[in-house]
Amino acid sequence: MYERYWKEMGEKTTLVISGWQSISYFSDLTNLCWFLEPSFADSVLRLHKLVGNAVTQDRHIVVGTGSTQLFQAALYALCPPNGSEPMSVVSAAPYYSSYPLMTDFLKSGLYKWGGDAHRFSKDNNNNNRRPYIEIVTSPNNPDGSTRRAVVNRIDGILVHDLAYYWPQYTPITSPADHDLMLFTVSKSTGHAGTRIGWALVKDKEVAKKMTKFIELNTIGVSKDSQLRAAKILQAVADSCDRGGVGSPEEGQATFFEYSHNLMAKRWNQLRAAVEKSQLFNLPEFPCGFCKFSAQSFQSQPAFAWLKCEGEMEDCESLLRRWRILSRGGKHFGDTPKYVRISMLPRDQIFHLFTHRLSTIQS
Amino acid sequence: MYERYWKEMGEKTTLVISGWQSISYFSDLTNLCWFLEPSFADSVLRLHKLVGNAVTQDRHIVVGTGSTQLFQAALYALCPPNGSEPMSVVSAAPYYSSYPLMTDFLKSGLYKWGGDAHRFSKDNNNNNRRPYIEIVTSPNNPDGSTRRAVVNRIDGILVHDLAYYWPQYTPITSPADHDLMLFTVSKSTGHAGTRIGWALVKDKEVAKKMTKFIELNTIGVSKDSQLRAAKILQAVADSCDRGGVGSPEEGQATFFEYSHNLMAKRWNQLRAAVEKSQLFNLPEFPCGFCKFSAQSFQSQPAFAWLKCEGEMEDCESLLRRWRILSRGGKHFGDTPKYVRISMLPRDQIFHLFTHRLSTIQS
Repeated sequence: MYERYWKEMGEKTTLVISGWQSISYFSDLTNLCWFLEPSFADSVLRLHKLVGNAVTQDRHIVVGTGSTQLFQAALYALCPPNGSEPMSVVSAAPYYSSYPLMTDFLKSGLYKWGGDAHRFSKDNNNNNRRPYIEIVTSPNNPDGSTRRAVVNRIDGILVHDLAYYWPQYTPITSPADHDLMLFTVSKSTGHAGTRIGWALVKDKEVAKKMTKFIELNTIGVSKDSQLRAAKILQAVADSCDRGGVGSPEEGQATFFEYSHNLMAKRWNQLRAAVEKSQLFNLPEFPCGFCKFSAQSFQSQPAFAWLKCEGEMEDCESLLRRWRILSRGGKHFGDTPKYVRISMLPRDQIFHLFTHRLSTIQS
Repeated sequence: MYERYWKEMGEKTTLVISGWQSISYFSDLTNLCWFLEPSFADSVLRLHKLVGNAVTQDRHIVVGTGSTQLFQAALYALCPPNGSEPMSVVSAAPYYSSYPLMTDFLKSGLYKWGGDAHRFSKDNNNNNRRPYIEIVTSPNNPDGSTRRAVVNRIDGILVHDLAYYWPQYTPITSPADHDLMLFTVSKSTGHAGTRIGWALVKDKEVAKKMTKFIELNTIGVSKDSQLRAAKILQAVADSCDRGGVGSPEEGQATFFEYSHNLMAKRWNQLRAAVEKSQLFNLPEFPCGFCKFSAQSFQSQPAFAWLKCEGEMEDCESLLRRWRILSRGGKHFGDTPKYVRISMLPRDQIFHLFTHRLSTIQS
């Protein structure tokens, strides 16, 4: 979806890197995160300040090979190294289907997937207080809802996955101000193949341990990709910085205007298709005032969390018969009546999808 | 050490990548390793064929965020998912100090560090046959020796770490022909900050499981870095391909001639310093015929495995007093009489190091 925007930007965001540049393992030995490229850190700080979606003051930036690696780094950093049993990692269902897989694939003795946070909260009353980490994904993947922590305990450890807290998807109501927040370029600018994410971390020791994880896991993070991500994030910031050096001309859209409008158009198109078919249901989102764009709108998430109405039990199979690929609700800790569908493919694919969906009859 | 060569190469290896390129997660959906950039795979195959250091026929290429990630991917792929106890991972001492750390940092239930392969082999006789993976590093890090498997069992699983099996470090006597071989650009061309390694894998299911590991760990590998590594490896191949399009002019050195000569010079310089001081000892290497360069020479490894002679017990502390940073033998499963020192720093640092070493008196 973002490809066209970046094509229209032309050579402004072209990365040029000579054969002899950035050869060493190290980026900045004075930084706690010694493999963090200073120009990438600068671009992160500037963009958060402009968009107003996260507090960056008194935070350490840890860069990762996508926020996927940072998720694992966070678990490693937050679990006691010598706990008597693995710490439970929970998230309210429906949750991102990769969380259980990433948590459990190495059968770590440090942490284990604990499932739905609502259920954990019920089982985990005062007579049975197990330590836990709760992942709060807001806006949520897969259903786009705005979320807060579910397990109501003062000693709980929270990780906020804010991959989708950008103004093309949801109103920016206030700067997020949590202990550990995860972001990624895949979702903010569309550069998934670059594999760059970042964490904003309040506690110095946690940031150090996350850095240690990445050191042991991949000895740092691609410099080439950090330099590229820096260029892309600066271009996004330039486009927002009205009156600045790289700001768009009169009548030209900023990056977030462009992508916001495209998402709005796609959600309208999807809702029209769903209405036509009458077999499905989509979540409704409350209207919120976005301080960044100074307008009110409803969330328009990167995924559609589609529900089959009536007696249809397996929505994924139904859609497959109509040649629509989706991911069934079970992967997300929910019933197979739901599926997740990406709202971000290329135009042609998205049009084909909504067309096919609109023609499905019971 | 390599920086100067790449500077002299000028703009030939400059990577130019537009803002809209390589945005997607996917590189090649027809390939088992779906995030492998085809141009990177091509460059790997071409270079191995030219250098003759590894058999690539009937092998799957899996790309990783450095060979560090591929090491972990290999452990994940080779251990049974439902074993009753973690599989032992062993390597003959002295071994690369990161192996135990990478194996144990997540307290995996799949595998655990089993220490020195010689000791494991003794304890693990026919009455006590535990399954194991042996890491064979050849040339070895830290001591530069040429190695074969130590544990003598037909049911052992071997991983060959061949990061240093390149003609600047050691004679290429024959193409390595093992089930699972690891390589990295950090050591072959010096581009450590690019974080790109590759595995040559005979068994399709193992290659698939390694791909799965990288999918769960980082959802693929930076495309930008793969494209850059492809360009660098092609330039190295061009320089070797006498008479080819990019081959050096008469009298100009190929990449491997340049780096071989520099390593030879540095080893001479180090041996002279060691002789002058009379407090230390260095390993001697047998002479071998290199089929690639058609000449005989002794290994000139990327690390010096320096031993303090006499009563000196802690070589690392001794060197620190003379302002030389090194890594003590204990990290490598050996005595503190040894230290590992990098032979690859910038010229100035290397000169300073040999100068300081030569002046150390008992």
